[in-house]
Amino acid sequence: MRLSTPGNSRFAQASSLNIIYGGGEANMSVSLAQLGVASKHVTVFPKNDIGKAATSFFTKYGVDMSVVYEGDRLGLYFLETGAGARSSRIVYDRYNSAFANLDPAWFNWETIFRETSWFLFTGITPAVSAPAAEALLQALQTARSLGVKVLGDVNYRRNLWKYGKTVQEIMPQYMPYIDVAICSENDAEDILNIRPAANTENTFVSMAQQLQERYPNIKTVVTTRRTSISASQNTLQGIGYSNGQYFGTPVLTIDNIVDRIGSGDAFAAGLIYGLINYQDEAKALNFGNAAAVIKHTIEGDANLATVQEIETVMNGDTSGKLLR
Amino acid sequence: MRLSTPGNSRFAQASSLNIIYGGGEANMSVSLAQLGVASKHVTVFPKNDIGKAATSFFTKYGVDMSVVYEGDRLGLYFLETGAGARSSRIVYDRYNSAFANLDPAWFNWETIFRETSWFLFTGITPAVSAPAAEALLQALQTARSLGVKVLGDVNYRRNLWKYGKTVQEIMPQYMPYIDVAICSENDAEDILNIRPAANTENTFVSMAQQLQERYPNIKTVVTTRRTSISASQNTLQGIGYSNGQYFGTPVLTIDNIVDRIGSGDAFAAGLIYGLINYQDEAKALNFGNAAAVIKHTIEGDANLATVQEIETVMNGDTSGKLLR
Amino acid sequence: MRLSTPGNSRFAQASSLNIIYGGGEANMSVSLAQLGVASKHVTVFPKNDIGKAATSFFTKYGVDMSVVYEGDRLGLYFLETGAGARSSRIVYDRYNSAFANLDPAWFNWETIFRETSWFLFTGITPAVSAPAAEALLQALQTARSLGVKVLGDVNYRRNLWKYGKTVQEIMPQYMPYIDVAICSENDAEDILNIRPAANTENTFVSMAQQLQERYPNIKTVVTTRRTSISASQNTLQGIGYSNGQYFGTPVLTIDNIVDRIGSGDAFAAGLIYGLINYQDEAKALNFGNAAAVIKHTIEGDANLATVQEIETVMNGDTSGKLLR
Amino acid sequence: MRLSTPGNSRFAQASSLNIIYGGGEANMSVSLAQLGVASKHVTVFPKNDIGKAATSFFTKYGVDMSVVYEGDRLGLYFLETGAGARSSRIVYDRYNSAFANLDPAWFNWETIFRETSWFLFTGITPAVSAPAAEALLQALQTARSLGVKVLGDVNYRRNLWKYGKTVQEIMPQYMPYIDVAICSENDAEDILNIRPAANTENTFVSMAQQLQERYPNIKTVVTTRRTSISASQNTLQGIGYSNGQYFGTPVLTIDNIVDRIGSGDAFAAGLIYGLINYQDEAKALNFGNAAAVIKHTIEGDANLATVQEIETVMNGDTSGKLLR
Amino acid sequence: MRLSTPGNSRFAQASSLNIIYGGGEANMSVSLAQLGVASKHVTVFPKNDIGKAATSFFTKYGVDMSVVYEGDRLGLYFLETGAGARSSRIVYDRYNSAFANLDPAWFNWETIFRETSWFLFTGITPAVSAPAAEALLQALQTARSLGVKVLGDVNYRRNLWKYGKTVQEIMPQYMPYIDVAICSENDAEDILNIRPAANTENTFVSMAQQLQERYPNIKTVVTTRRTSISASQNTLQGIGYSNGQYFGTPVLTIDNIVDRIGSGDAFAAGLIYGLINYQDEAKALNFGNAAAVIKHTIEGDANLATVQEIETVMNGDTSGKLLR
Amino acid sequence: MRLSTPGNSRFAQASSLNIIYGGGEANMSVSLAQLGVASKHVTVFPKNDIGKAATSFFTKYGVDMSVVYEGDRLGLYFLETGAGARSSRIVYDRYNSAFANLDPAWFNWETIFRETSWFLFTGITPAVSAPAAEALLQALQTARSLGVKVLGDVNYRRNLWKYGKTVQEIMPQYMPYIDVAICSENDAEDILNIRPAANTENTFVSMAQQLQERYPNIKTVVTTRRTSISASQNTLQGIGYSNGQYFGTPVLTIDNIVDRIGSGDAFAAGLIYGLINYQDEAKALNFGNAAAVIKHTIEGDANLATVQEIETVMNGDTSGKLLR
Repeated sequence: MRLSTPGNSRFAQASSLNIIYGGGEANMSVSLAQLGVASKHVTVFPKNDIGKAATSFFTKYGVDMSVVYEGDRLGLYFLETGAGARSSRIVYDRYNSAFANLDPAWFNWETIFRETSWFLFTGITPAVSAPAAEALLQALQTARSLGVKVLGDVNYRRNLWKYGKTVQEIMPQYMPYIDVAICSENDAEDILNIRPAANTENTFVSMAQQLQERYPNIKTVVTTRRTSISASQNTLQGIGYSNGQYFGTPVLTIDNIVDRIGSGDAFAAGLIYGLINYQDEAKALNFGNAAAVIKHTIEGDANLATVQEIETVMNGDTSGKLLR
Repeated sequence: MRLSTPGNSRFAQASSLNIIYGGGEANMSVSLAQLGVASKHVTVFPKNDIGKAATSFFTKYGVDMSVVYEGDRLGLYFLETGAGARSSRIVYDRYNSAFANLDPAWFNWETIFRETSWFLFTGITPAVSAPAAEALLQALQTARSLGVKVLGDVNYRRNLWKYGKTVQEIMPQYMPYIDVAICSENDAEDILNIRPAANTENTFVSMAQQLQERYPNIKTVVTTRRTSISASQNTLQGIGYSNGQYFGTPVLTIDNIVDRIGSGDAFAAGLIYGLINYQDEAKALNFGNAAAVIKHTIEGDANLATVQEIETVMNGDTSGKLLR
Repeated sequence: MRLSTPGNSRFAQASSLNIIYGGGEANMSVSLAQLGVASKHVTVFPKNDIGKAATSFFTKYGVDMSVVYEGDRLGLYFLETGAGARSSRIVYDRYNSAFANLDPAWFNWETIFRETSWFLFTGITPAVSAPAAEALLQALQTARSLGVKVLGDVNYRRNLWKYGKTVQEIMPQYMPYIDVAICSENDAEDILNIRPAANTENTFVSMAQQLQERYPNIKTVVTTRRTSISASQNTLQGIGYSNGQYFGTPVLTIDNIVDRIGSGDAFAAGLIYGLINYQDEAKALNFGNAAAVIKHTIEGDANLATVQEIETVMNGDTSGKLLR
Repeated sequence: MRLSTPGNSRFAQASSLNIIYGGGEANMSVSLAQLGVASKHVTVFPKNDIGKAATSFFTKYGVDMSVVYEGDRLGLYFLETGAGARSSRIVYDRYNSAFANLDPAWFNWETIFRETSWFLFTGITPAVSAPAAEALLQALQTARSLGVKVLGDVNYRRNLWKYGKTVQEIMPQYMPYIDVAICSENDAEDILNIRPAANTENTFVSMAQQLQERYPNIKTVVTTRRTSISASQNTLQGIGYSNGQYFGTPVLTIDNIVDRIGSGDAFAAGLIYGLINYQDEAKALNFGNAAAVIKHTIEGDANLATVQEIETVMNGDTSGKLLR
Repeated sequence: MRLSTPGNSRFAQASSLNIIYGGGEANMSVSLAQLGVASKHVTVFPKNDIGKAATSFFTKYGVDMSVVYEGDRLGLYFLETGAGARSSRIVYDRYNSAFANLDPAWFNWETIFRETSWFLFTGITPAVSAPAAEALLQALQTARSLGVKVLGDVNYRRNLWKYGKTVQEIMPQYMPYIDVAICSENDAEDILNIRPAANTENTFVSMAQQLQERYPNIKTVVTTRRTSISASQNTLQGIGYSNGQYFGTPVLTIDNIVDRIGSGDAFAAGLIYGLINYQDEAKALNFGNAAAVIKHTIEGDANLATVQEIETVMNGDTSGKLLR
Repeated sequence: MRLSTPGNSRFAQASSLNIIYGGGEANMSVSLAQLGVASKHVTVFPKNDIGKAATSFFTKYGVDMSVVYEGDRLGLYFLETGAGARSSRIVYDRYNSAFANLDPAWFNWETIFRETSWFLFTGITPAVSAPAAEALLQALQTARSLGVKVLGDVNYRRNLWKYGKTVQEIMPQYMPYIDVAICSENDAEDILNIRPAANTENTFVSMAQQLQERYPNIKTVVTTRRTSISASQNTLQGIGYSNGQYFGTPVLTIDNIVDRIGSGDAFAAGLIYGLINYQDEAKALNFGNAAAVIKHTIEGDANLATVQEIETVMNGDTSGKLLR
């Protein structure tokens, strides 16, 4: 659950908070469902009214919810939306959530993966707790055995890993199962101790090559480059490496940012949509980047854009002309 | 009635909709009333609480409402306000409105036009229904006979013409009654099959000349040029042709757009204000363009700006300095 | 009390008004309290529920309120927030306020100034009424006698001086008590008839030199330079003169302005914070300018930014990056 | 201008205030206009944006506004809405309003009263200031000379009379001009030193008889009896005396009070509607009482009920059944 | 789509409208889904953003949506919520809706009814248009042939039948397919010309007996008795007749009504829940009545109450005690 | 932090939540501060923006906050406000809060209790965690040694005791330190195994006598009797036993309940106010009960009523008459 102050007000000023429900993989599920791709979200919600309200939220946007209701609390975070030179601020409150306290035995991955072609995960899940990390490993093993392809968003957030294990201990276990990795140079260095070669022209390519060398299962490596002019104006570009080829999208400008949370998840979901529909990785990356750009104009964590809207941006029209 | 989602939320996200009442000619009436020009709006509203609420709305802003209450429904449209690369979206719901089902016999134009100097109409009215088109024709004929001058905003919206007649069949009937035409090259081509001469330097002038040749009653032709950088940033320029002279306003930049709906109507009303008050068509166009620019900063369909505010912009001060 | 229309709506459109409590010196007090500097606000509020609500407001933000409850009304002002080319508008309603009708005998400045190092005032206080002007003079005399340093924001607002005295009669009485003056060339000319030397390169320095010559007690003269691109975009720079030295901060760009009211008070409070903490006037000015810049992103009159947020801007990072 | 806290929140809790514009005679004007009786409101508003917004408000509800724009401030009051055992609270802030500072010479009553059949005033107007009291006297004299009938709501609010004159000095001047008086026993005693005869069965009748004896011009005396069970539940009854006859309406119960402010004005306007339309004083009183009852269900100062709604209540149907 | 004014404000006062999506059968579907009964809603929504938003709404509450997207507009209605003696008011705007213009051939009822045990309809559907009436007949015929039981809420709303057919022509066609009829004495008289026997003690029983005589397929006849004390306070009782037995629930008091729209649909859904789960018609009726009562405390058209909440009321506990 | 759905909406319907900060002892502190009794609140808040916002909230209402900032999360609860027969629902989320993880060594009670006459605690504090229970014991011991009187609200909430200890193990430790106990018969039985004598006329007196016998330090025992007619209507009575005397307040009716959370804390604070100011336990109880009644009309956890408002109710005036 996300609780955000209205408009640009500060925490101490707010007398109400807007609520939406979100989270890395959940956002991807919503985004895919909105793009017309059947998507299922597997999770644990508390066995109370709040857990049920969360399910309603995702169901509304077309996600097939596979929820275990156990435990007492839903992880949540507080968001204060900045502007101009003032940063947005997040206060996390998700320890001891129902999800963190899951039992891996609750999930029958063979059943869950019936008729599934892609499994998506982020590096946030194993950061939450040991059983979450264990459940993820089991999911990946089953995915591999059933031929389900895997997108892994290697998303290292330093201040999340608090249950006693380090990212360096846990994350490498998952790498052999990934087909498409979202991974920046910083992530690769922090997690896998992979550093771009000295004096390389393209640090991303250097990193991607080393990554693929170590984990030949990773066919494609992508990431985004963001420039933050202010909290209200950014630029975004998707870059990728696959089959020995580097490719990058145009650098798109985002003015008057409405809500930037979840743009990485929009990117991942857009990429998957593209990979499924285009048979062209560069075009898929373009779709992913356009999806991420348009996410910044949408309130909430999840990208509620349509294929047509994203393709308009992907095709170079960022004019936002009125549609009557 | 316009029903718009709050902030930038999408239709599926909204749990409430903001309402204002608006429409081409109604917006012009409000704008003129706000500028101190006595204005009357002639229309049909449904004979119910919604019709009365609509009248209250326009009365509030000083318009003399001449309303026939008949029928069941008020035409309405839904608006979702975009941002950045995401377009605003409009869903129309105005077929079978009380207005569309009017009976031309309800209007005694001779009485209505008592003490009237200008009659304003848009191309949206005849697009609504056959009786609306017929009533407009009668109004124009009476206006001519009484010496009331006519501004016609030849505003062709393809997807509105659904009652069986085409714009090409209907619109040419009105052209002989127009003194001041708001008409773009596209409008002229779509409606009247007038194309700018090949290799002309100024396609607008070429169009305007042909238009005046065919309809010598049209003394002045104007339009606006909009560049859409994003849904939040545009530029706007007014251009005109009259007495063999081309004239254009400065290109004004509009950042942080609040609401662009109705800026064309603000332009028309501003132009009329200028023609009445300045005795200078270029200055009138400048006022109209400045009015349209400032409309983008105002919530709702109608321009609630004052003469002083518009003149400030017209005189080149777009700094928006705080007025204490 | 400030009563502002929601979003960008005009006065006639609003069906509710947002309230905050503010005012020059009160805003400075809040800002200082938020920066961790103990601050006390001395004022008069009406002896009714509104007066008590005002006290609650400032108490909330950590100000030590020293309030005399007498009289019937709280001064207030109405604010309509502009955008783009449309100016924000203020309608003042503060005559005959409880504060204006104060009795200077109500304040025992010796007690009030116990353990006080700085006293801050603005030129708005003596503009309100004769007793307010008198109370201020007594405060300054006591401050001098107790060694309390004085910042005076010589803020001349022409349309406030309505009780029979002119700024030229009153303001010069205070000048001999000021240590740090916030004063622009216009202020100096209007109030003290000080004009920059002809042909000077730096009109601010010329003014500051003459000011210090006339009032040697004024060690430091500062002001801000604002460029208003539109109501939504400004630039801001702080400049100062002290010890024969001119210094200026970088020119900072402010896009997507949320609320610019009170940025001058944020500047003053930031400057004082800097003078207390940095032992470096140029750095203090930088902090003040950064504080003023970040104030534009915060709703309400007062700057609720933290030291860390302001230092980030002061150190050149205006990127507004998301803080997780 | 009325500024009320949202819902039931207290002043210190509110971060916004709902605004409507209202006042005794203005509320009567709105109510009459809503009932289809042409009504004009004569007043003074400040020469600023707030004054214009106030005019817009009343114009919206069909009142013909006859406004002199002079002065700086609109009188206002703050309202906190109680519930159950907690009283609603009003904080007045209307001294030195534009209205209080009027010049009687601004009003040409002969012109104003053209085609007028009734003039309505309340005892609040002369309580505001000496010139307001003087203007009212001139209006009454002109009304008499032109045969305009007068309703006077002798509404004594002790804490309003602050400009040096007492109600006992001023109010008796108006009594000889009144045709219909709204006056309670308390009012009669406080203002005119009229006390019900000892041992009378009906104190109201005793008072009314003495009143008519002293002022034979007063044909009809009416008032309402309110029982306050809680801030949320009241009962209301209208009583009257005319032509030697006492009459009373049924006692109506009001549950779930939405907004009781202005119910007295709704009563007066309803009474006038009844007197004009029914030729039956008892029925007119019934309509007035029903109007006052239904006012409690409507937000704001003014009664926006229709004739049909009030007649439903007047005819004994207070069931509030859903109307599809 | 329902568009309701906030709080108790009147149409002319509202600057926003709350939206929810609802309608007789849709409300029943939501209510059943919330009670844990799998429910599918078959309908036609316009092929635009509004249609999709409507689907999202019902999906959120667990309904399996079987939607044909065709046509331009969603039927809608405006609601103004009364209080006390002021009635709530509804303005319908649903002619020419996408649903009204359906083609019966769009629905394959054999497929739709797979694994279905109950089919629910109201008398509103055939009132909308001839094709809607035809589609309903086909649905009923298929239901019969497949052994799907039918609840028919014979809900006659006079002002809905506007397409040329009368309720007396259409409704009798459906009667032979109904197992459980919700039908009042008025309905029976208006539609079927069935009048309670003269001098009968129980008019409902007399009507039900005649109804069953004419349509032996109707096993059970039920209805509710509402007493409207005011728009804020009602009482409600369910009564039924089945197997020659009359049964009635306790009369329950409803104070502080939040939203009474849809209470009839809540009753129907509750009844079905009861019939499925209790094997006891009187208890099912009790559950239905308790469901209808608790619906009055819930915002929107649909009953979002849980089984536990309804059973608490059904078991006689209407104390509304805080649940920690 | 309390997060409550707006109006009467259910959790799944809400798109925003109203926030206030509250909790048993904190509510008492606010209430006392509002009554003019200097009050200090000792607590632990997380070391983040939320913790600081909480402090601001209580500071606003005049509480002297003695806060240790440590840990990550603020305990919170979700509230859905019922109506009529639908109960309000609370979902707690306060395990592992910063407060629960306190270290008793953080509090120097000798310093804290300087100039303190009363210490108030509730049975919720020791239910939270073992260190909280330990800190409370130390506080009580210090209070005793310093002569600080103690009010203990023995408030047993079964579902809060989850850290391994039972109420029966912990609570009896505190009893020897209590001067005034708020304790119902149920509490006494559950916690201390004290049962009213069989066949007693007054079970409360019987319990109180046994309690005082076991703990002679307890001079006074009080509690409230609530009757819940519906979620919107309750009655309330305070009863007490002291010096061998039983006393009870009138039974007060509460209609149109706005917010009943915190009424027990309002009772306790009111009682203390009364004990300090009246020197009459029965009158103090009356004040406490009146305070609790009026709390039901106020939004939020804390009683923001004034002495004058409570005394009005205490003196038997629950009419809620408008105060101008």
